[in-house]
Amino acid sequence: MKHEKDPARGVLLTLPAWLEELMSGKNIVFPDPEERMRWVIGLSRRNVEQASGGPFAAGVFAADNGRLLAAGVNRVEPLTLSPAHAEIMAIAFAQKRLRNWDLGHDAASPTELVTSSQPCLMCLGAILWSGVTCLSYGAAAADVSAILGFDEGPLPADWPRELKNRGIKVEGGRLRGEAVAVLELYKKKRGMVYNSRQGF
Amino acid sequence: MKHEKDPARGVLLTLPAWLEELMSGKNIVFPDPEERMRWVIGLSRRNVEQASGGPFAAGVFAADNGRLLAAGVNRVEPLTLSPAHAEIMAIAFAQKRLRNWDLGHDAASPTELVTSSQPCLMCLGAILWSGVTCLSYGAAAADVSAILGFDEGPLPADWPRELKNRGIKVEGGRLRGEAVAVLELYKKKRGMVYNSRQGF
Repeated sequence: MKHEKDPARGVLLTLPAWLEELMSGKNIVFPDPEERMRWVIGLSRRNVEQASGGPFAAGVFAADNGRLLAAGVNRVEPLTLSPAHAEIMAIAFAQKRLRNWDLGHDAASPTELVTSSQPCLMCLGAILWSGVTCLSYGAAAADVSAILGFDEGPLPADWPRELKNRGIKVEGGRLRGEAVAVLELYKKKRGMVYNSRQGF
Repeated sequence: MKHEKDPARGVLLTLPAWLEELMSGKNIVFPDPEERMRWVIGLSRRNVEQASGGPFAAGVFAADNGRLLAAGVNRVEPLTLSPAHAEIMAIAFAQKRLRNWDLGHDAASPTELVTSSQPCLMCLGAILWSGVTCLSYGAAAADVSAILGFDEGPLPADWPRELKNRGIKVEGGRLRGEAVAVLELYKKKRGMVYNSRQGF
């Protein structure tokens, strides 16, 4: 139906123009997991420098060869959407590309979510529904809340085990220092901390 | 920038045509909290009957007078997006309408999220970021997992207290029987249970 394609009647999630241009027509592949993370942290830094959202980025990669399927950055403030975290954006764009709500639908081609900071409660829940089979993150939630004051929510005490029990491997703290430097840059630039008024 | 309005380049969240038509041009107000819930459960039933998504619906209302700001239904399967739960949809459409990522930005006009079933882990996290100051739900997460086998995620043991500590009041089990009847209808119709392959 026509109106279902009309963006005026829906909520449109968009990436910043600089990120679209960066990826346009390119086959982006990082066989080395550390290089995947370095690229994602670079996106989070650029998102701060370009003032196109919060200091967070994520990417969905083919777990075997490191081919990028989709990237996302935090877009809460520019899109005025609190769910527009980097992980949600990357998952949504990857699912659009694969035309499947399950990024693990092809058991022969598992997918990995690489994110510059540990997922908040919402994104942790989103990962469980997404079908990715590996999560890699840089900065810890404790870095995010200590440096910027974001309320990451009541995370389960042993959340990596909760993911593992559901078939999702977790690798934490990869290039943590580089990820933390971006959080500090955002603080220095007095970036918006978008806890809701009732958040704290 | 032109391309940022181009739905082909973004991910477009849309409501079913029947729901758009139901709300079109109308000022929908339910001063009675039970009537708000009955209307929302009615949406979840219609979503099953029309095969336009999973058996869940939600609405964001002005907490004082019960005026509807936005409604959402589960759209995971038709949009091929795992984050497209009813609560995320309702929050996103309300934030689009108010042009604000914080549904509590006006302390004089608090907002309430009414949802046919208890939020999963992702939606619980999304509620914390959304700015709503009240959550009302019908069926329990235990109903959803027992009847349909959805994995609601590792919810914190005392999650209502976690919300209360952040200024969000919780009212659970309102018209639970009517909400449960919709879950049973979905089961009878053999609706898709969209846990990711690795989910269970």
